[in-house]
Amino acid sequence: DPNLKVFSLNSNPDLAKQIAEHIGIQLGKCIVSSFSDGEIQISIEESIRGSEVYVIQSTSDPVNQHLMELLIMIDALKRASAKTINVVMPYYGYARQDRKARAREPITAKLVANLLETAGATRILSLDLHAPQIQGFYDIPVDQLLGVPTLAEYFLSKQMEDVVVVSPDHGGVTRARKMAERLNAPIAIIDKRRPRPNVAEVMNIIGDIQGKTAIIIDDIIDTAGTISLAANALVERGAKKVYACCTHPVLSGPAIERIQKSAISELVVTNTITLPEEKKIDKIVQLSVAPLIGEAIIRIHEKLSVSRLFN
Amino acid sequence: DPNLKVFSLNSNPDLAKQIAEHIGIQLGKCIVSSFSDGEIQISIEESIRGSEVYVIQSTSDPVNQHLMELLIMIDALKRASAKTINVVMPYYGYARQDRKARAREPITAKLVANLLETAGATRILSLDLHAPQIQGFYDIPVDQLLGVPTLAEYFLSKQMEDVVVVSPDHGGVTRARKMAERLNAPIAIIDKRRPRPNVAEVMNIIGDIQGKTAIIIDDIIDTAGTISLAANALVERGAKKVYACCTHPVLSGPAIERIQKSAISELVVTNTITLPEEKKIDKIVQLSVAPLIGEAIIRIHEKLSVSRLFN
Ligand SMILES: Nc1ncnc2c1ncn2[C@@H]1O[C@H](COP(=O)(O)O)[C@@H](O)[C@H]1O
Ligand SMILES: Nc1ncnc2c1ncn2[C@@H]1O[C@H](COP(=O)(O)O)[C@@H](O)[C@H]1O
Repeated sequence: DPNLKVFSLNSNPDLAKQIAEHIGIQLGKCIVSSFSDGEIQISIEESIRGSEVYVIQSTSDPVNQHLMELLIMIDALKRASAKTINVVMPYYGYARQDRKARAREPITAKLVANLLETAGATRILSLDLHAPQIQGFYDIPVDQLLGVPTLAEYFLSKQMEDVVVVSPDHGGVTRARKMAERLNAPIAIIDKRRPRPNVAEVMNIIGDIQGKTAIIIDDIIDTAGTISLAANALVERGAKKVYACCTHPVLSGPAIERIQKSAISELVVTNTITLPEEKKIDKIVQLSVAPLIGEAIIRIHEKLSVSRLFN
Repeated sequence: DPNLKVFSLNSNPDLAKQIAEHIGIQLGKCIVSSFSDGEIQISIEESIRGSEVYVIQSTSDPVNQHLMELLIMIDALKRASAKTINVVMPYYGYARQDRKARAREPITAKLVANLLETAGATRILSLDLHAPQIQGFYDIPVDQLLGVPTLAEYFLSKQMEDVVVVSPDHGGVTRARKMAERLNAPIAIIDKRRPRPNVAEVMNIIGDIQGKTAIIIDDIIDTAGTISLAANALVERGAKKVYACCTHPVLSGPAIERIQKSAISELVVTNTITLPEEKKIDKIVQLSVAPLIGEAIIRIHEKLSVSRLFN
């Protein structure tokens, strides 16, 4: 369909290429550069009048740069008479600022929603939103895909025995259960408690892990503090081997060093966030969500249900 | 008035301090930092419920970082029940993307207006907007201050004779005339022409500059290409000495080198943009617009006319 156009900005060029290949089209032509003073300059190099446009951009680090690229691109598409502007954000930055944890804090995940709608987005497609409430921040449709099927497929192909899926906290139990169902495995939960104020947290493990292969699953791994401690606790309590996996490999600050030093034998992630060369260590396996996103774009374009297929 | 609060973000801390001193208040307490992954974290450390808040932030380089800080701060202020949120942008970034110069380009100066209004700004105060049309991009009040009075005062204090004020292009004639009036001097205009396509531009000078001290004035000096060529042309055609001045010292890329090498004997700028140490060269004199902005804030707060005073 010549009315379906996919454009890539600067966050995930390889993923975008793979998505276009999956759909069987060429990426749209546009130039995203900077003026000498750092201001973003965008120019769309083909007509998109009346087109259904998909823009691939994660708001990963550098988050403010990536977000502004996206907003400026949406503005340009709107003024060039795109029929719909579908924003594909494999990773949704600022998602953890989704509520006022303390007085006089911003709710930046909601601000981002307002900014995208104001710029002219007509639909959002993302993976594993940190909080499902973020869908409610929008007045336009928001589709959420899950990383679990892609991650589960990888572990299934390993044909491991005696597996237990571990949630690193109580908030992640639903995700762990979805994974466990696909692997036909039981779950365990790490229960962090601070016995008294100003005393280090203790990691209790709810569930049986003795002699088993544990797979810890989370949505985001950022500084990798929790996941490394959890892996070590699991080994101490008798787990045979520990894998970790997540959809969004933020991996900032001390993350890589912590993973290297931890009891994690392999960390499995997706490519919602591009890993720079220095983060591509042997322990990390990166899986592509291009088929998933490509399929979702085809289904949205053909007005078919997305949630039915993937969740 | 305890209901008047001034906050500084990260672009112009010194200017903000001077503005608060001019008004005779303390800067509001807030912490603007970054999480490990680069996401901005803002926390306002004092009650602002019912207050009239002024936020000082130029969207200078790094423009996307500075703009996002500003948007997130506005969101936090709005949710903390500020009565009014007055955005003081001494330098308005993206102002040169104020129209579609070619097909399928964004109009980023208008996008920025929409983003600021969506976040919750109730008033904008800026200096020398690159295009006066930008006021029309907003549905909230926009006050514009001018750099000319501050710059003119400096040159008047030098008590120079035989001065001519030079506009580097036809677009800047109004500004040059305002300066010339204050200095009681004539004006000249640089008339760039391309004799034939693909031939270098020729600089014609309209007006008498022979044996005079020329002061070139512009709103923004960015890569300093035009201004350096203009200065050299003026000296070649008989000007005795050449000064340059502008409100906004963007000075990106080759600017400093070009200014060093040019016939400009002194470049006079304001502090709407903070100069990093490596740009503080002997040829550059930086004047403070803190008294101007401070006075404007007092007048806005007291519901007096701003334009009457300064323009
Ligand atoms: N980019 C970030 N990096 C680290 N922590 C964050 C970030 N954004 C928000 N937070 C904090 O993470 C917490 C929310 O995470 P969660 O409890 O997992 O939903 C809040 O306390 C936030 O202050
Ligand atoms: N940050 C920037 N740096 C250099 N040129 C720019 C910038 N933003 C916009 N422009 C260009 O400057 C021109 C507008 O400047 P002007 O003609 O002086 O209003 C347009 O051709 C823009 O493409």
